[in-house]
Amino acid sequence: MKINGKHYRSVWPLGEDAFGIIDQTKLPHEFVTLRLTSAQDAAHAIGSMQTRGAPLIGAVAAYGLALALRADPSDENLTTTADTLRATRPTAVNLAWALQRVADAVRNRPRDERAALAWKEAAAICNEDVAMCEAIGRHGLTLIRTLAEAKKRKLNILTHCNAGWLATVDYGTALAPIYLAHDAGIALHVWVDETRPRNQGAALTAFELGAHGVAHTIIADNAGGHYMQRGEVDLCLVGTDRVTAKGDVANKIGTYLKALAAKDNSVPFYVALPSSTIDWNSSFGGDIAIEERSADEVLNMTGRMANGKLATVEIAPLGSAAANPGFDITPARLVTGFITERGVCAANEEGLRGLFPQT
Amino acid sequence: MKINGKHYRSVWPLGEDAFGIIDQTKLPHEFVTLRLTSAQDAAHAIGSMQTRGAPLIGAVAAYGLALALRADPSDENLTTTADTLRATRPTAVNLAWALQRVADAVRNRPRDERAALAWKEAAAICNEDVAMCEAIGRHGLTLIRTLAEAKKRKLNILTHCNAGWLATVDYGTALAPIYLAHDAGIALHVWVDETRPRNQGAALTAFELGAHGVAHTIIADNAGGHYMQRGEVDLCLVGTDRVTAKGDVANKIGTYLKALAAKDNSVPFYVALPSSTIDWNSSFGGDIAIEERSADEVLNMTGRMANGKLATVEIAPLGSAAANPGFDITPARLVTGFITERGVCAANEEGLRGLFPQT
Repeated sequence: MKINGKHYRSVWPLGEDAFGIIDQTKLPHEFVTLRLTSAQDAAHAIGSMQTRGAPLIGAVAAYGLALALRADPSDENLTTTADTLRATRPTAVNLAWALQRVADAVRNRPRDERAALAWKEAAAICNEDVAMCEAIGRHGLTLIRTLAEAKKRKLNILTHCNAGWLATVDYGTALAPIYLAHDAGIALHVWVDETRPRNQGAALTAFELGAHGVAHTIIADNAGGHYMQRGEVDLCLVGTDRVTAKGDVANKIGTYLKALAAKDNSVPFYVALPSSTIDWNSSFGGDIAIEERSADEVLNMTGRMANGKLATVEIAPLGSAAANPGFDITPARLVTGFITERGVCAANEEGLRGLFPQT
Repeated sequence: MKINGKHYRSVWPLGEDAFGIIDQTKLPHEFVTLRLTSAQDAAHAIGSMQTRGAPLIGAVAAYGLALALRADPSDENLTTTADTLRATRPTAVNLAWALQRVADAVRNRPRDERAALAWKEAAAICNEDVAMCEAIGRHGLTLIRTLAEAKKRKLNILTHCNAGWLATVDYGTALAPIYLAHDAGIALHVWVDETRPRNQGAALTAFELGAHGVAHTIIADNAGGHYMQRGEVDLCLVGTDRVTAKGDVANKIGTYLKALAAKDNSVPFYVALPSSTIDWNSSFGGDIAIEERSADEVLNMTGRMANGKLATVEIAPLGSAAANPGFDITPARLVTGFITERGVCAANEEGLRGLFPQT
């Protein structure tokens, strides 16, 4: 993705002893990059959501683990650091998946080779993520094209949270088909859910779509059902942090409500994901750990003041408590289908196994 | 309702040539009252949402029309001013209902008596609203008590927007039963939907509940479905701006999504309303005019800075558009029942006609 004419991925190596990320807590107001030089830096960046998005935090954790092995390549440090990084966010399965890949790549290898092997594996994870997202984009494009040909007018697509290139290494999951459709000349407009409490929709998805020239409108999370009732949504397209083997979907809090409205109004509801997001060991969505984040994210809001400076304001009465579950579970019965790097399938075990038989 | 030990209604006469309201745009940060001296003042206060809530804007409009008749008691001024006041907010039917009551009270009466008659009628509307809300509270209390006895534990009630005393002249609609249940010693806790974009939940409902000592937790609008899935919501209780004769409900944007989640999780979903909110002339919710408000309400957020001063921040990228529908329609099929001043009834024509046969 290009920012001011320069191509960026969402994570990139800087030599072999550091890597770079975009500080997503500053977007859309400021474009700031960070240089991370340790696993502790990576853990902080993931926990504070300077970097976020299920596929991306896997890649960042992989680089973090590689840096830890440069400092100390012991099995003990491998295990401890992987545990620390895995614990930063409990819901996305990509984090555990990427850490396992790095661990597998260095297991039974000489200690003096481990750092370089891990660094190479982290880079491979990034490149594969880009390829998977590009493939998701192509399969999703076919779906969007078919819908556009049926509707014979500009398509309205609703998305929740940010599942764009900022949530992955590049391209995005849910937004990849939208970018490819836009580039292919298909007329479309995106309803962008604000996505409280952290506003990833208003801040990140709007930023991405605007930079790419895709027509979009930010709406309160409350509004999507209304637009579906009025026939003004043709397709819902979201990402996910974990999909169970039976097709239940963990995604940003509020996704479930949109899926209910889509079902009630016969709007197709698709979830886009690389296969690294599938948790083959889990079948029931209700078993997935849901991260509880700080109440401050609900009670405070950060934005630009008229003078251009960032400020944080409190929006609630002093003394009122808040709760902040980060994700919810959308049952498979509400999902029309999955868009994966291997194609589109039904949201059930048969569909997933059909595309990924050997996993 | 008491604020700092002093009893307030949400609107009150000041002699016969002015009336007072609380500036709700300043809550919960500052408690400021305003003195309104003309119909123009009233129209501005309603349009800018310094005063809001379906029952309350009816009462404020009635006082505004009475002030206009003091300045010019002609039929022409009566019609023009009523039209202006009615146009300030299109969705709530109470506005038209209250203006009609004042118009009926002065029609065919001598011009020199009109201002006093209108003033008296506005006061009667206020007193009747208080009595209706108190009765809603009593009927809702019975419902809550029955539920608490069945659950044998603390009840969790979810509410959306503000349907408390700040939305009415006193007591509230959806919150009246909660206040009475709390006062009766029933253990309960309220999930307060933030209610973007104007945060009436985080700002007003939390303020009211806190002032009354009711345990509550503010949540993002996205979170309610998750808590229902987890069995942590026993009852949804909301207000409404217009109910059709067949039971469709116009209420704050996002209500529909909560009703869908309640249905999906078998959580009872009740709507509390004075009969002035029923639009007997309308049967299909889809016919109700939905107010489209300023995009700024989505793009900006106002709150307290660390120094206690109020500030407004922009949360989205420059150049991104926003849309802001103020209400949505919850179909009667998703509503468990209505709590009115005459009791509880099914959300359909038979239920409403059973309680209000002569209307």
